[in-house]
Amino acid sequence: MSAAARLIGVGVGPGDPELMTLKAIRALEEAKVVAHFAKAGNASNARAIVAAHLRPGVPEIELHYPVTTEIPRSAPAYCNTMREFYDASARQVAAHLDAGRSVAVICEGDPLFYGSYMHLHVRLAPRYPTDVIAGVTGMSGCWSAVGTPMAQGNDVFIVLPATLPQSELERRLADADGAVVVKLGRHLPKVRRALERAGRLDRAIYVERGTMATARSMALTAKADEGAPYLAVVLVPGWEDRL
Amino acid sequence: MSAAARLIGVGVGPGDPELMTLKAIRALEEAKVVAHFAKAGNASNARAIVAAHLRPGVPEIELHYPVTTEIPRSAPAYCNTMREFYDASARQVAAHLDAGRSVAVICEGDPLFYGSYMHLHVRLAPRYPTDVIAGVTGMSGCWSAVGTPMAQGNDVFIVLPATLPQSELERRLADADGAVVVKLGRHLPKVRRALERAGRLDRAIYVERGTMATARSMALTAKADEGAPYLAVVLVPGWEDRL
Repeated sequence: MSAAARLIGVGVGPGDPELMTLKAIRALEEAKVVAHFAKAGNASNARAIVAAHLRPGVPEIELHYPVTTEIPRSAPAYCNTMREFYDASARQVAAHLDAGRSVAVICEGDPLFYGSYMHLHVRLAPRYPTDVIAGVTGMSGCWSAVGTPMAQGNDVFIVLPATLPQSELERRLADADGAVVVKLGRHLPKVRRALERAGRLDRAIYVERGTMATARSMALTAKADEGAPYLAVVLVPGWEDRL
Repeated sequence: MSAAARLIGVGVGPGDPELMTLKAIRALEEAKVVAHFAKAGNASNARAIVAAHLRPGVPEIELHYPVTTEIPRSAPAYCNTMREFYDASARQVAAHLDAGRSVAVICEGDPLFYGSYMHLHVRLAPRYPTDVIAGVTGMSGCWSAVGTPMAQGNDVFIVLPATLPQSELERRLADADGAVVVKLGRHLPKVRRALERAGRLDRAIYVERGTMATARSMALTAKADEGAPYLAVVLVPGWEDRL
């Protein structure tokens, strides 16, 4: 292994290529190999964000998820399939590191916050020099697009997956100041009921495709239950005791 | 008011100037006026981050907090003094907007997440064209510097101010997957006790001066109770059920 070989988790931000950091761009310009995750048959979102900054001809490792929603996440088959996929992905990246080539793994948002990069990180960071370049998260992109203050002063702020049971969502939404509910999709009707019972529905804002050119947002009370994409979010702004 | 006059909340990231986004840099290069908050007598941290990107001779508005810790936050005098300060700050910024000059308000981290910019935003965004440029948060800077995965899959993630009572901290730390405790300072002994009672002390990581060159981190169990800066944080990584 050459001393130059580093694993680099590169946060590329929420979607707008201008929300990439200088450090991410430098990492891409310097990396000998660029790796990215994507659904099989789909282009990587992260790659689309960085396209203008890739060196011509730089080798790319495309890591295609073997399953996404075809098997329930709770099924043992899902865990086994995904574990084998991440093990194999780590071996592919390690082969380049062993040959002395730095590998930049590009990640939407921030690499260590709900991202696939972490599966490589936990397998490889104990064995190879590793850097992580923080990125603007998807949720920051969403609340900035909408212009909504989210948390201030001594606020408690929480991120909740929409997959939680309604009673859990209700309890936690009533117990936090600012909140973001992620992975909305088909869970929107349940999230709406939880917000209503928690007394927070009137403040809630629905956002889809955050910082994409096709972003769309509205009061949640104005959004129909149908047709929320998987990556849509609901923002519940904190800071109710404004000076 | 000229059509060109915009209020722009510019997130400049957690400290490392390379963690600024391209969009933040463009906003600074285009703005006719740059505004920043700071403690009276201190240089603005945000200004230090962006210094290399300021146009020579660009007019700057320095907004100096009239009080920081001299008056308790719960005292009516604190609220009144701060409200008058933010009102006066908004009038200073508005005078430039009324004269047709765009004003970039630079903010450490992300503008709408625990930042002073929000006090200007709620006063001015209803009256002037406004853009908010998302930034890398201080907490992302901290966990990236340490290389710690924070939340994954269906994790619940929470941000807790260390000012909360110990019982509240304990209850909430036991009830979340990933957590960041902010504004540590003199509250460190209480936070340690809450983590111990919540059964999370062994996973906790202490970080001070996040992405500054002088950053320091260690297992919280190795950190003495004394000498934690106000802006130090404790990270409690989630994702305990790793594939």
